[in-house]
Amino acid sequence: MSMTITLITDFGTADGFVGAMKGVILSLEPHVTLVDITHDIPPHDIRAGTFALETACPHFPPDTIHVVVVDPGVGSDRAAILVETVHGRFLAPDNGVLTSVMPENDAAQIYTLDKPEFWRPAVSATFHGRDVFAPVAAHLANSVRPERLGTPTTRMERLTWPLPQRCGDEIRGEVIHVDRFGNLITNLRLEDLGKETRDARFRVRDLGIRGITPHYAAGDGLIAVVNSGGRIELALPSAHAARTLNIDVGEEIRVVL
Amino acid sequence: MSMTITLITDFGTADGFVGAMKGVILSLEPHVTLVDITHDIPPHDIRAGTFALETACPHFPPDTIHVVVVDPGVGSDRAAILVETVHGRFLAPDNGVLTSVMPENDAAQIYTLDKPEFWRPAVSATFHGRDVFAPVAAHLANSVRPERLGTPTTRMERLTWPLPQRCGDEIRGEVIHVDRFGNLITNLRLEDLGKETRDARFRVRDLGIRGITPHYAAGDGLIAVVNSGGRIELALPSAHAARTLNIDVGEEIRVVL
Amino acid sequence: MSMTITLITDFGTADGFVGAMKGVILSLEPHVTLVDITHDIPPHDIRAGTFALETACPHFPPDTIHVVVVDPGVGSDRAAILVETVHGRFLAPDNGVLTSVMPENDAAQIYTLDKPEFWRPAVSATFHGRDVFAPVAAHLANSVRPERLGTPTTRMERLTWPLPQRCGDEIRGEVIHVDRFGNLITNLRLEDLGKETRDARFRVRDLGIRGITPHYAAGDGLIAVVNSGGRIELALPSAHAARTLNIDVGEEIRVVL
Repeated sequence: MSMTITLITDFGTADGFVGAMKGVILSLEPHVTLVDITHDIPPHDIRAGTFALETACPHFPPDTIHVVVVDPGVGSDRAAILVETVHGRFLAPDNGVLTSVMPENDAAQIYTLDKPEFWRPAVSATFHGRDVFAPVAAHLANSVRPERLGTPTTRMERLTWPLPQRCGDEIRGEVIHVDRFGNLITNLRLEDLGKETRDARFRVRDLGIRGITPHYAAGDGLIAVVNSGGRIELALPSAHAARTLNIDVGEEIRVVL
Repeated sequence: MSMTITLITDFGTADGFVGAMKGVILSLEPHVTLVDITHDIPPHDIRAGTFALETACPHFPPDTIHVVVVDPGVGSDRAAILVETVHGRFLAPDNGVLTSVMPENDAAQIYTLDKPEFWRPAVSATFHGRDVFAPVAAHLANSVRPERLGTPTTRMERLTWPLPQRCGDEIRGEVIHVDRFGNLITNLRLEDLGKETRDARFRVRDLGIRGITPHYAAGDGLIAVVNSGGRIELALPSAHAARTLNIDVGEEIRVVL
Repeated sequence: MSMTITLITDFGTADGFVGAMKGVILSLEPHVTLVDITHDIPPHDIRAGTFALETACPHFPPDTIHVVVVDPGVGSDRAAILVETVHGRFLAPDNGVLTSVMPENDAAQIYTLDKPEFWRPAVSATFHGRDVFAPVAAHLANSVRPERLGTPTTRMERLTWPLPQRCGDEIRGEVIHVDRFGNLITNLRLEDLGKETRDARFRVRDLGIRGITPHYAAGDGLIAVVNSGGRIELALPSAHAARTLNIDVGEEIRVVL
């Protein structure tokens, strides 16, 4: 049975960089199934990379190998890591892009990739996706043990996400992602709102929303829904909310319970 | 031999939504071959979805499963359907996006997908691509019979495409799609023009075209060609006709025979 | 073991054209592995096509079939060719897009594809990707010999790339590609600079750069690095150099040694 390797990068698709990674993988392990998750992460946007990872990767079989290359520090002394969890195996630069795969107290094994014998013979200073991550992913798919590919370690970089803040009977969150439809995805989860979600009042700038709407089609004007990742999301059902309201990542969302 | 599942969506590729669908499918049926047709359907543009489907799907093997998710009504009471034809099997929301797979009088079997035991255990209100269509596609690939996945029905939503109108010796059509090259694809087919296509005169606004040109490279200025789907298409061979002439979907095209 | 077919086109992904090619291939040879390299070559940009090919294709197994469709002359009398090299097999219109796969003096076999019995029965004038290249790729994957698919020939179209010019102790090159990150990739290679690369001074307009920086993260302001393809590349590590400096393909780069 063939192993699956997924790819998340900020390389875009116009330059052939992703193709080079696929070629390296298939040259070392032709029986692998390659799956594109996305190559359209905005250049160097580590948060957007971890958001795509959080959206897609948990749905794959647990032996899937996920290669995540959003790598502003390529060529510097930032480490390359492998993280083995019960939900999947992840290869990435150690810059926080794997934050969401391993909650603070979760059991997982981290390895620093420091065995150049499993890399391409000449490693460029600008393209570790092709020269380090692609060959290591192929060897992993080919049943090489993690201990041969790297050295166990106990730490990795983590992003500090903005957490919702409670101030009296108000909760302050913020927009952390704008999706293709212009929906404003927030750092608020349903459980942050307590029990009376039907009566929660949301405020973004001078706009108010009362309660959570069951789905897009039920709404009129700006609505709040629980999205498919369990997050509170503000949406204009028939328009691009972010562009219409000129709101972007970082905008404050207040909730009065 | 592995089954092929194709994907047509308006999810774009930057958010991880498509990746989530692929993960759900591979978790249920790892032996499937996944093929991206497109994820760049403009958000909620059902006509563009059916046009991509008409362009690509007829060329696949007849046992292919095509998943088409352009779904402005997600979460509402619009049905989800499976249509089995001799050309392929199609899963989509019942909003007209499958119009082109089944001409009005064609023999095909339609099923309403109403068996939640074949969906993800918790179905979100905003992402049936992941929670309904992906798992049903995987079960279908895994040889689950359509009668177990849904209930036979005789009707489905259909788009009413604008049809060419005959007025005396003039035929009035319109632009129904602009492709990546800026070519203006019309609702006119060669057979609409009768026998004297060499002498047909096309008019769009105050521009005239005489006759059909055999291919792009033979033309100069605005030309009419028969495109690869059998439709009359207006093109500026070395330029983007839609932008150059400021013409979009809906523009009237007249033909004098 | 399944054969790999890669696709490089300028079709974009919104119209279903790429899907049609995939369907034709899988209908003729279901056991093939399809790999998207890119479909985002700018329309009709043969140089960008050959650049993507140069970036990606050398990394694939040598029996891979690469289909490269950037085809402004579709339908005209330009030939369709197959080039067999030790690095891979390439199918493309004969318009120079395969220049980089075969250096001037390299041993390779070129075939003119002139056997319509291996094409789709009705070949459109506008879509040879679907009607000629896709079926020929499938037959090739299915072990049909090249001599049956075409007629050997000794010539093919080649692009003349701008070559660096030496003028006294100055070398004049130019920008030949801008990648997604805005990096300015030049026609200069490290070996063009001789031995004293540490002291090389680059000039683009009135901006000067001294020496080659080992990697992006080490730099400050505009830097020169050796990119993953061995070319000299000018970059602004934390910004999009092409947009920031308003520089595009064709801009002159001077090097004083």
